[in-house]
Amino acid sequence: MRPNLTPDIDLSARLFDALRAATSDGVGITREAYGPGERAAHALVAEQARALGLETRHDHAGNLLMTLPGADRAAKQIVLGSHLDSVRQGGNFDGAAGVLAGLAAVAGMRRAGFTPARDVTVVAVRAEEAGSWFPFSYPGSRAALGTLPPEALAVRRMDSGRTLEDHMREEGFDPDAVRTGARSLGPDSVAAFVEVHIEQGPVLDAEGIPVGLVTGIPGSRRYRAARVLGEYNHSGATPRRYRRDAAIALAELAHRLDDAWAVLEAEGHQMVCTFCVLATTEEAGFTKIPGEARFQLDMRSVSPDSLNALHAVLDRLIPEIEARRGVRFELGEPSGSTASPMDGAIRSGLAEAAASLGIAHRAMASGGGHDAAAFAAAGVPAAMLFVRNQNGSHNPHEAMRMEDFAAACAVLTRWAAEAAG
Amino acid sequence: MRPNLTPDIDLSARLFDALRAATSDGVGITREAYGPGERAAHALVAEQARALGLETRHDHAGNLLMTLPGADRAAKQIVLGSHLDSVRQGGNFDGAAGVLAGLAAVAGMRRAGFTPARDVTVVAVRAEEAGSWFPFSYPGSRAALGTLPPEALAVRRMDSGRTLEDHMREEGFDPDAVRTGARSLGPDSVAAFVEVHIEQGPVLDAEGIPVGLVTGIPGSRRYRAARVLGEYNHSGATPRRYRRDAAIALAELAHRLDDAWAVLEAEGHQMVCTFCVLATTEEAGFTKIPGEARFQLDMRSVSPDSLNALHAVLDRLIPEIEARRGVRFELGEPSGSTASPMDGAIRSGLAEAAASLGIAHRAMASGGGHDAAAFAAAGVPAAMLFVRNQNGSHNPHEAMRMEDFAAACAVLTRWAAEAAG
Repeated sequence: MRPNLTPDIDLSARLFDALRAATSDGVGITREAYGPGERAAHALVAEQARALGLETRHDHAGNLLMTLPGADRAAKQIVLGSHLDSVRQGGNFDGAAGVLAGLAAVAGMRRAGFTPARDVTVVAVRAEEAGSWFPFSYPGSRAALGTLPPEALAVRRMDSGRTLEDHMREEGFDPDAVRTGARSLGPDSVAAFVEVHIEQGPVLDAEGIPVGLVTGIPGSRRYRAARVLGEYNHSGATPRRYRRDAAIALAELAHRLDDAWAVLEAEGHQMVCTFCVLATTEEAGFTKIPGEARFQLDMRSVSPDSLNALHAVLDRLIPEIEARRGVRFELGEPSGSTASPMDGAIRSGLAEAAASLGIAHRAMASGGGHDAAAFAAAGVPAAMLFVRNQNGSHNPHEAMRMEDFAAACAVLTRWAAEAAG
Repeated sequence: MRPNLTPDIDLSARLFDALRAATSDGVGITREAYGPGERAAHALVAEQARALGLETRHDHAGNLLMTLPGADRAAKQIVLGSHLDSVRQGGNFDGAAGVLAGLAAVAGMRRAGFTPARDVTVVAVRAEEAGSWFPFSYPGSRAALGTLPPEALAVRRMDSGRTLEDHMREEGFDPDAVRTGARSLGPDSVAAFVEVHIEQGPVLDAEGIPVGLVTGIPGSRRYRAARVLGEYNHSGATPRRYRRDAAIALAELAHRLDDAWAVLEAEGHQMVCTFCVLATTEEAGFTKIPGEARFQLDMRSVSPDSLNALHAVLDRLIPEIEARRGVRFELGEPSGSTASPMDGAIRSGLAEAAASLGIAHRAMASGGGHDAAAFAAAGVPAAMLFVRNQNGSHNPHEAMRMEDFAAACAVLTRWAAEAAG
């Protein structure tokens, strides 16, 4: 029997407040990847880790490793954590909750005088928010794992226009080590990685369940800079048959792809499909038929088959609409990722921990991508716990109740003590 | 028999060149209504009119009146013309062609020593391009006709944010006279108004016909500041049934209204329907479901019944989409105009003139609104001649061949000499 460990939630509450105060932008919070906001968050968390007596260091890529030493320093460690960057004008919990949950767990172990058989390391990963900073998946965790391709160093941060390498070096880290495949974590040194994260979606809240056990992280097929080209013409003077209306062509594509998603879902496919941006350009205006429109398309599924089925509809619709409406679609460079199923043994362990604590939970697929996908792809057994939250994420109204966070931390702490036992 | 009058097309060619040189913006031409571009165009045209010996003056609202005196100064006059303002980065011919056609006709009369029985006046109207400057129909011609409602003086120019009254006064004109209903033209003093204008659409070019005889100017129902409100959410983490996606709701509305237009057209209705702007807002971005989108909708028809039939579809679609997708449409302030049929006697006279000259022509509805609609609404018999043009209008690539312009001028001159004769 393990001692009856409880996470140190008071510590988490203080850290959430300190993070909010340090990285508020007046509207929400902003923690730029490899920039001032992320740097401030890392400084706060590292300071607290040192105060807890954890072995604390930044790796070559700036990921923060905070280790509670175990009895056997050579045994594979247990790693808990998530990222500390945020989108611009985001919320305080996306990412940070996973780091603070890890700290709450090891602080609880410390407080109970519990020495695990193996190291338990809390990791604060860099630069997870690919949609806001570097348009590249998981550069921080992949750099830690030695799986970041060198070409990622040349990717430019969307706001500054400067490369990941520049920003990494500016923060005092070592992009050359990234280039040579150095790693601070890997399957030979990590027994399990568990990431706590707010759900970001409405499912747990709608169903009244505090904790989700993630079955997998979806793969994606994405177009970030797609457009439709038609012809600007006078909106009054151009009869229907002479039009090459880019906006209506895009509206048709979006509406019909959305309909196809509904049909596929009814057939049992699980996926999401979003036109994140759908817009005529600056040139548009009253009395003009739009000659150009641009869009961003984001398709995700835990099943590659489902993703391919949806993409097949896209492939069929585009030439049909082009021919009928006299427009041309340019999808641009595709991006995407493959789906990552979560580790079955860890999932079972987390479910047992939740059951033993009497905490309601449900299995669910992740909607978003997470660092856990990078760990799984590198061969590290990985899993995730979702915390019920309100108002979605990536916005200033993002919310999470501390009792739900405490429930997830309790599950995490019990499982970690068992796994590190 | 009238003398064999021919229009002075060389004069027109010189004036087109001078206008282009004076109002080029580097991309196209820009003649701001009651602003520097329009002012420069009026100065050039007025100077030429004085050189031709025409009685030349600006009225209280800044409309330029250039009169070839007739034998009977008290008889109702013939008025020829159009506007001199343009959209931003527009073309050189939209509007100006009608003023220069009028000047070509009276210059031809002067050259032939022809004194008409009644005055022939060329008018350069102010501020016709409502889509670019003052969002109000025909403020210049309605001020000339005494039919501009005083509240129009408070409408703000879209770029400057300042009122029509301010701009009018700044240019040296008299908004107080507009307020009291002063007029420089009207049914008691004008026997007929004929406006030459580029077609702005592709019909004459596609059919190989140089000149169109306009049957009527469509009425419109418009929404310039409509929007859809949903909810921003994470694009990966929000399942279909929890979404309130403003962009897809708008795409569905646009696609289905466009489909309804196709069906109505197949049933014999004549109309156009354009989503001039259709756009997610600045807040949109990758990994977000759009919570808001905005649009501009422009529906036009010469038939009020057709316009109402299309609007009925809009009225039916909106609540259905709102209920199913959890969004709210806000159409905002409607605007619009009633259809204006062109005068039958003038149309017959123009058709006879074209036939006697052997110039191919066809009857056609106008696509856009034009000053001729304001004259018709004020009780002045009015008609229009369209000139074949290429590349639409309201863009820098707008084109018109001088031989087509000359054909329209020949028809106009022959008709005007007959009507004034």
